[in-house]
Amino acid sequence: MEREIFETRFKVRSYECDSYGHVNNAVYLNYLEYGRMEALEAMGITLERLKREAGALVVIRRIDIEYFWPATMGETLVVKTYVKEGRRSSGIFRQEIYREPDGKKIAAADVTWVFVDLEGRPIAIPQMVREAFRL
Amino acid sequence: MEREIFETRFKVRSYECDSYGHVNNAVYLNYLEYGRMEALEAMGITLERLKREAGALVVIRRIDIEYFWPATMGETLVVKTYVKEGRRSSGIFRQEIYREPDGKKIAAADVTWVFVDLEGRPIAIPQMVREAFRL
Amino acid sequence: MEREIFETRFKVRSYECDSYGHVNNAVYLNYLEYGRMEALEAMGITLERLKREAGALVVIRRIDIEYFWPATMGETLVVKTYVKEGRRSSGIFRQEIYREPDGKKIAAADVTWVFVDLEGRPIAIPQMVREAFRL
Amino acid sequence: MEREIFETRFKVRSYECDSYGHVNNAVYLNYLEYGRMEALEAMGITLERLKREAGALVVIRRIDIEYFWPATMGETLVVKTYVKEGRRSSGIFRQEIYREPDGKKIAAADVTWVFVDLEGRPIAIPQMVREAFRL
Repeated sequence: MEREIFETRFKVRSYECDSYGHVNNAVYLNYLEYGRMEALEAMGITLERLKREAGALVVIRRIDIEYFWPATMGETLVVKTYVKEGRRSSGIFRQEIYREPDGKKIAAADVTWVFVDLEGRPIAIPQMVREAFRL
Repeated sequence: MEREIFETRFKVRSYECDSYGHVNNAVYLNYLEYGRMEALEAMGITLERLKREAGALVVIRRIDIEYFWPATMGETLVVKTYVKEGRRSSGIFRQEIYREPDGKKIAAADVTWVFVDLEGRPIAIPQMVREAFRL
Repeated sequence: MEREIFETRFKVRSYECDSYGHVNNAVYLNYLEYGRMEALEAMGITLERLKREAGALVVIRRIDIEYFWPATMGETLVVKTYVKEGRRSSGIFRQEIYREPDGKKIAAADVTWVFVDLEGRPIAIPQMVREAFRL
Repeated sequence: MEREIFETRFKVRSYECDSYGHVNNAVYLNYLEYGRMEALEAMGITLERLKREAGALVVIRRIDIEYFWPATMGETLVVKTYVKEGRRSSGIFRQEIYREPDGKKIAAADVTWVFVDLEGRPIAIPQMVREAFRL
């Protein structure tokens, strides 16, 4: 079975860069979050809908990110996102960031998430998510 | 009658600076927000309590900020906050940012806010706020 | 003579929103900066080139922003940017933010900037900028 | 030999929280950076001095962060930072974030860094850093 890979494109903005002229390390986590939200939305899923229809919140448990090459202002980046692993209530998104058009690898991360109810207790991955990502 | 002036002190952090090594212009609005929250909290008021007890949200309508001198990493700043003007449902905070210990003026702003109910309609300033700031 | 208006489009990202679910007030200043950089770039001008070829830095002196309506995650916004006024070394950008596709006005700002040399002294607006914006 | 542990205390600010009312995941990386800068500064080392005296830049290669419990607005946090491992040109900072006064563990990270010269090539850890952290 093939994994679906979602791509999110955007340009690095001036205010995202630090005094070295490089994208700040924390900003890459913003990019990853943006990529995950776009992946969910492409499947018709929003945080709002998850909360309302399934009483579910997504919580990030761990992010392991490697930085390969700094991105700088004005560059176009693409975040590639796919579900690498899914268990009962948790899973791992693999996300890689590339520069365009030369394909230089900028960063890559494993993002571990878990679904919890409104009291913070782990719950089974909502059906709409299982179907969307074929988990 | 004297106006009470609230002071909030903090150090400029590395990730708040841009490629010129200066605090990014938008970050000063974060500092101002931090100063306002601390001023409210010093009076025993939180956004949570305003919402729960008075069904009130504070919305910012306008910010007019002047930048006098750039702040850089590691410098200690103080935000001075006071209520400059209060009307029925709105008012203006005056906020000035100084560098310590030399007192160099960094920025100054007039921040216009309004209280609204949960549907977004203007409402009278909640009593707890009137009392706290003697409006 | 007609004024050229530059448009920059983008989507509101999840991490730009606060606990009310609205774009944080400071983030709009990031959007404005992004709009100005894109306007400059559309004219072939970058901060790097200004520094290298004209020994010039652009410094923001004042931002007067009005907030009309909150933007929320996933909405598409457009920043419209034009030069409202130009003097010897300074000028004012007018920038307005609209929601698409309904055209709801979200925010509007006057941004006063000045060109300075590497020691921070005001200098005449560089020729490349005068030509680009017909000042 | 004992490891020296550096502690940096601060309060969570309103604009650092997301629509769940929790500190945004990326913001923790800002906190970690702040903690590292304060640890360096406590030893008399700044990025500026490293660049000027040793021609050295510090680059982050990897951050592996676990999130245990969400922090919310107004809470006081402490970042504990120490050098876990040092090699020829690289090393690992261990950083843990706790809530005060109850000591609840919020997050913990291994941060891998490397020293490079102004062209980006790995170089030996500068002597001032070796001495400061007894590497």
